[in-house]
Amino acid sequence: MSNQSKKIIAVDAHGGDKGPKAVLGGLNQFLFKHPGDDILFRIFGDEALLRKMLKKYQRVARNCEIINAPDVVSQTDKVRDIIRTAQTTSMYMAIKDVRDGNSCAIVSAGNTGALMALSKLAIKTIDGISRPAITTMLPAGGGDKRVVLLDLGANVQCDEENLFDFALMGSVYAEKIGKIVRPRVGILNIGEEEQKGQEYLQRLNNLFNEHKEYLPFEYVGFVEGTDISGGEVQVVVTDGFTGNIVLKTVEGTAKLMKRVMTDTFKKSIIAISVAFLLTHVFKRLKAKLDPRSYAGAIFIGLNGFVIKTHGSSDALTFANAVRYAADLADADFNSRIRASVRYMSKLKTELKNAT
Amino acid sequence: MSNQSKKIIAVDAHGGDKGPKAVLGGLNQFLFKHPGDDILFRIFGDEALLRKMLKKYQRVARNCEIINAPDVVSQTDKVRDIIRTAQTTSMYMAIKDVRDGNSCAIVSAGNTGALMALSKLAIKTIDGISRPAITTMLPAGGGDKRVVLLDLGANVQCDEENLFDFALMGSVYAEKIGKIVRPRVGILNIGEEEQKGQEYLQRLNNLFNEHKEYLPFEYVGFVEGTDISGGEVQVVVTDGFTGNIVLKTVEGTAKLMKRVMTDTFKKSIIAISVAFLLTHVFKRLKAKLDPRSYAGAIFIGLNGFVIKTHGSSDALTFANAVRYAADLADADFNSRIRASVRYMSKLKTELKNAT
Repeated sequence: MSNQSKKIIAVDAHGGDKGPKAVLGGLNQFLFKHPGDDILFRIFGDEALLRKMLKKYQRVARNCEIINAPDVVSQTDKVRDIIRTAQTTSMYMAIKDVRDGNSCAIVSAGNTGALMALSKLAIKTIDGISRPAITTMLPAGGGDKRVVLLDLGANVQCDEENLFDFALMGSVYAEKIGKIVRPRVGILNIGEEEQKGQEYLQRLNNLFNEHKEYLPFEYVGFVEGTDISGGEVQVVVTDGFTGNIVLKTVEGTAKLMKRVMTDTFKKSIIAISVAFLLTHVFKRLKAKLDPRSYAGAIFIGLNGFVIKTHGSSDALTFANAVRYAADLADADFNSRIRASVRYMSKLKTELKNAT
Repeated sequence: MSNQSKKIIAVDAHGGDKGPKAVLGGLNQFLFKHPGDDILFRIFGDEALLRKMLKKYQRVARNCEIINAPDVVSQTDKVRDIIRTAQTTSMYMAIKDVRDGNSCAIVSAGNTGALMALSKLAIKTIDGISRPAITTMLPAGGGDKRVVLLDLGANVQCDEENLFDFALMGSVYAEKIGKIVRPRVGILNIGEEEQKGQEYLQRLNNLFNEHKEYLPFEYVGFVEGTDISGGEVQVVVTDGFTGNIVLKTVEGTAKLMKRVMTDTFKKSIIAISVAFLLTHVFKRLKAKLDPRSYAGAIFIGLNGFVIKTHGSSDALTFANAVRYAADLADADFNSRIRASVRYMSKLKTELKNAT
């Protein structure tokens, strides 16, 4: 592109429930909050519409290129249909921009299944990784602590090789983005019952335990649902079905607790009368618990960075997603994954021979 | 037994981390809170020890019989070993008391796997039910609303017949214990992705949708993790691996949020200075969010009632578990399950023929 020192990020302007307005608003928020970052956005979408809207976002207008994409992938499109018809959509054109080396990352609020399928098709999976995964960091253990959880839904059924790769990629993510030295990694399982039927978890657990000293992370063994937010483990590895349900259970529980809290406070006359004194407490609490501050999910294991935000993303979520994209590009993340794949290749062979 | 009008509940005095003290304390709390209930406890355990401890619990002493059981099932015992050696344990003797018709229910804080295996062995699964399940009610949607979630870990891998039975039993539970007329039932799944690899969920979903009017509950289709605590659905059906992890994720998230709340309040000088005014608010909040008020899990699908409390149960949890046992016995629960099995037998045959 025109300026090689800039970080260039491809943006899918369509696909989110709130449309290009949330997207441009998010880019604007990002540029306002991080004036020091030298970033250029390549925005894919309806050019006429975008140019018109950009009049309201001068900061974005000064830091972007618009590339016209006549079509849009909808949230309800089926993956098998999309692959044939996606060529001219804003999503696929933005993905191909990463493949062609014009952009280093793509951010989209669109259809997750389509985004993953098209990313695999165009950007391709990293050599030696069996399957890319969807991941994010969730709050854990209080303070600013976080836990990396993967897979969040790209792979409904998994085997031990997939989870091996998730552990590898999750630990690199915790190191590079979470700034954790030698992260503690656990495999999600249930505790009280016999482990019948989940033999592949046992096989991977045995392999990791046998080679504990050799691993590039601290392997802690099986962890349970309570451990995800406990703060003692920094990477939790599971299949995409369980991971997706866990992620949404956390969101649902947080929402319910906020509701119970609000209801309980509303019922107290004393609480209402001192509420104005507590405004700053609630503000701080809200910031800590706001899922929008961590709702961006990363597709890892591809030869490029794909950041997926919630379909219902607003400008704040989108701004945070751009932050993820910029951080990943900074961290030289994929070269570290490739190094880890090479380092662990002997162990992988052993795992494959054992099954 | 001596008095047939009494409700008689078998109690395993050992097995919980806190030992017989929490058990007797719990029975005492229950009798104190519910003086109107005409209940007799048949307590199985170390008779000499229990008689000595009962001096402190006169209320329990007046309403119990002690049956000496020389051995104890430990939390770490393996199920396959237990089946051979359990005859003289407090857990198995208490279970056999239900089988023999002396007690109508058993309450234990012991090893879940052992309790389920021994219950299946002695009390047997209800005819027409493929597998018993572990279930509980969780807070959902605010107020006093609850959701029935099953299975919580008895069946790590499931097929459509198991989930069919879970829907049947869960809806009876919501009706009889949750007092909900025609409960709304959903199957837990992930939303955004293609459903590859989970064909059995699709098959059951199709069958239920085709026969919606015929079902003895309101079938709402697939639900996601966020819906569990959303309050719109009253029964959520899933395999025991996912259900166990969901249950523990809810517990973990609730714990983390309490911690974040407390930390945030502690950091505010104003909040500390008005905290004494808010004591009753926090008290009410604590009661709403306390997992001990709903930590009892029920084994359903057996020819008798088995109530399992947390291994770490204290007296309050144990008192609530006894409440569950008494309610189940009142509700004539199993005859309703049997009627539902008969009513749905044609549909079950259709499901079996389709696969």
